[in-house]
Amino acid sequence: MAASTVKVLGTHPSPFANRVLIALNVKSMEYELIEEDMSNKSELLLKSNPVHKKIPVLIHGDNPICESLVIVQYIDETWTNGPSILPSDPHDRAISRFWAAYIDDKWLTLMSGVGKAQGEEAKAKVQEKLQEALVPLEEAFVKCGKGKTFFGGDNIGYIDIALGCILGWIKAIKFMLGVEIFDVTKTPSLVNWADRFLEDKAVKDAILEPEKLEILKLHLTKREVANAN
Amino acid sequence: MAASTVKVLGTHPSPFANRVLIALNVKSMEYELIEEDMSNKSELLLKSNPVHKKIPVLIHGDNPICESLVIVQYIDETWTNGPSILPSDPHDRAISRFWAAYIDDKWLTLMSGVGKAQGEEAKAKVQEKLQEALVPLEEAFVKCGKGKTFFGGDNIGYIDIALGCILGWIKAIKFMLGVEIFDVTKTPSLVNWADRFLEDKAVKDAILEPEKLEILKLHLTKREVANAN
Repeated sequence: MAASTVKVLGTHPSPFANRVLIALNVKSMEYELIEEDMSNKSELLLKSNPVHKKIPVLIHGDNPICESLVIVQYIDETWTNGPSILPSDPHDRAISRFWAAYIDDKWLTLMSGVGKAQGEEAKAKVQEKLQEALVPLEEAFVKCGKGKTFFGGDNIGYIDIALGCILGWIKAIKFMLGVEIFDVTKTPSLVNWADRFLEDKAVKDAILEPEKLEILKLHLTKREVANAN
Repeated sequence: MAASTVKVLGTHPSPFANRVLIALNVKSMEYELIEEDMSNKSELLLKSNPVHKKIPVLIHGDNPICESLVIVQYIDETWTNGPSILPSDPHDRAISRFWAAYIDDKWLTLMSGVGKAQGEEAKAKVQEKLQEALVPLEEAFVKCGKGKTFFGGDNIGYIDIALGCILGWIKAIKFMLGVEIFDVTKTPSLVNWADRFLEDKAVKDAILEPEKLEILKLHLTKREVANAN
């Protein structure tokens, strides 16, 4: 398949677009990232995602697919020769989908409060909530990932991609605001998991370094969350 | 498989629990519905869904599975001999997941505003928003369901279950509040689809009649939405 048949409408700092790039990397698929200017959305984006007008969109041939977790599942089901992103067992798949929904509906919703928090007290409160909301994920990792490198086992899988997409921003937030979200005393397994995830070859090119994200300031909490899913 | 190995923790008026019952009916699976008192949650519910403490939960053997759309996919992937709920083509599956997410994140969120609306003006505003938000679904039905009975084709599928679960309440709200949400002038195909859906044998026993729901008043918009997913 020619590289040009797989396009991603996104932005490099967007964690939701990053999910799509990581999934394509897992499958060793070539793709073209078309950087969107979210303050002046392209005709292609408006045509490809007329309902939400948000990034990311995967365009495979002539077919646009929207919403990051829907896209990741599409990639897994379309390029079945590569490593599996979702496990094969239906119960394990359900567990993966449950935690991905938790990450989107609960954890990333809390994350969007980081940039809005004004003052030390408000920052500390958001930090505490985020750390608390990571504890069930720590427990899930210990349970399903016992002795494993990733939630997905030896290779990164669905939960890894759902949560890991935000790790560049987690580091950038630490630099910018001094807010430590992945705390080694509260979620030690996740701290180690995060380091491994960011070093994985499928991830390295997909996620911007914290230094580059820092330059973009809290872009994420304002425009990215409003324009991505 | 003995009927007792499939249990559903839910309530009969809950549209989210109804999704699970409908999916099990599509697969001709026997199940035991364990009615939860959401004001006094059972130990079994708290143990089975410790993260959200919400209904519905499917318990298959010893395994609890939570969140209605995750459960519906689990049912489809576990009992593969029955009619398929999700289509087999990856692009069609992505379309189904996209609309199911739209229904949960956008449409049912608007629905929860019906019971809160005070006065004619507020009611009319919610009604208008709900009707507008149905238009993309009408278009999707016309597009993917051209000449078909359901979104899923001849049989009810994933989008049908995601949206159809609320139809008992839609009728009850019409009786109770005089608010017509499925408007034949704006979404004619969906009005006809809704009648067919409610007549389907997989649906009839799963969804309470509007008259029974009316007795329960706007239970849905207060407690059910807060305690279900």
